[in-house]
Amino acid sequence: MKRLKRRILDEATVIGTDILKVDNFLNHQVDVEFLTEIGAEFYKRFGPEQVTKILTVESSGIAVACMTAPFFKTPVIFAKKVESRNLVDDTYSSEVYSYTRDKTYRIHVSRNYLSAHDKVLIIDDFLANGKAAQGLIDIVNQAGADLVGVGIVIEKGFQEGGNQLRLSGVKLESLAIIADMNENRIIFQNGDTDADYAD
Amino acid sequence: MKRLKRRILDEATVIGTDILKVDNFLNHQVDVEFLTEIGAEFYKRFGPEQVTKILTVESSGIAVACMTAPFFKTPVIFAKKVESRNLVDDTYSSEVYSYTRDKTYRIHVSRNYLSAHDKVLIIDDFLANGKAAQGLIDIVNQAGADLVGVGIVIEKGFQEGGNQLRLSGVKLESLAIIADMNENRIIFQNGDTDADYAD
Repeated sequence: MKRLKRRILDEATVIGTDILKVDNFLNHQVDVEFLTEIGAEFYKRFGPEQVTKILTVESSGIAVACMTAPFFKTPVIFAKKVESRNLVDDTYSSEVYSYTRDKTYRIHVSRNYLSAHDKVLIIDDFLANGKAAQGLIDIVNQAGADLVGVGIVIEKGFQEGGNQLRLSGVKLESLAIIADMNENRIIFQNGDTDADYAD
Repeated sequence: MKRLKRRILDEATVIGTDILKVDNFLNHQVDVEFLTEIGAEFYKRFGPEQVTKILTVESSGIAVACMTAPFFKTPVIFAKKVESRNLVDDTYSSEVYSYTRDKTYRIHVSRNYLSAHDKVLIIDDFLANGKAAQGLIDIVNQAGADLVGVGIVIEKGFQEGGNQLRLSGVKLESLAIIADMNENRIIFQNGDTDADYAD
């Protein structure tokens, strides 16, 4: 998605070789108009499938999922990350290790909101090692629901999560795939040059 | 907002005298179409003001804020709740005590996204003791920005947060105010009867 890549080049900050900050439009300040374009792009890629639920995980997946859901005319379910006094029902749950925060947490989805009748599209802002996506897929499987696919805004193609999902047969659509990055440059997959992302 | 009150009566679960679960459309499963109606209602109430930023706090405020922002044509900023390796800039920050989770956390907003030129509308899903709203107002004040007001989906009117804000001169608009609740009934403020919330 050309405009997304352009904005990553113009607005993202790389810290070390691992952290990509896109706080300007995705992870802290949210450009809802731009996220609506992103939602339209996910619809173009997954729209022919009969999606009944969009599943994400709190918190930074919520904005993308909410701006995408109106195209599919489905609700969003966001998996919750911690035990909470407010989530007392029986849940589907899965353990996820976060490299960014260097800790393991458990994600939960109430059994009320996913069933074997659902066709689920997983949406998230980032895919790196793929642990969060795998946890969400685990929850879809526990529910006996169909997994339509996984839609990701930015994939770190130099980490293994994306390829593991593709090899396992998951339909994965990442709108921008970063092949390599450091504090001076960001290279997208497919050998595209900077000129490919002109406005 | 009549349809909201109707849905609370039909779909919410009260646990004890303090916890109201609206996981069916607001806090876990998100009905984005309904939240768009809620956004339209906030626009009706705050639209005449020149809002430049909508401010909320992760995570359950994000969905409401994102479905509201398109009416105001502004970005959303969500305050982050924990120290994170990804938030290294100078930030405005404030301490918030959560009764629900019985712990104190710190909320942060990057100085890049709020300034003295901004007119800020705070949006959140719940208001009870008002600690989260006060923390967000503290951040707006640190930025030297103007506070347009606070828009809340559900206010627990039997707790003190709402009245404290009103007494301090904040324009507070809560779309449903619960005067009293227990596991058998929910009473809204203004002495409305159940019939007032018919479809």
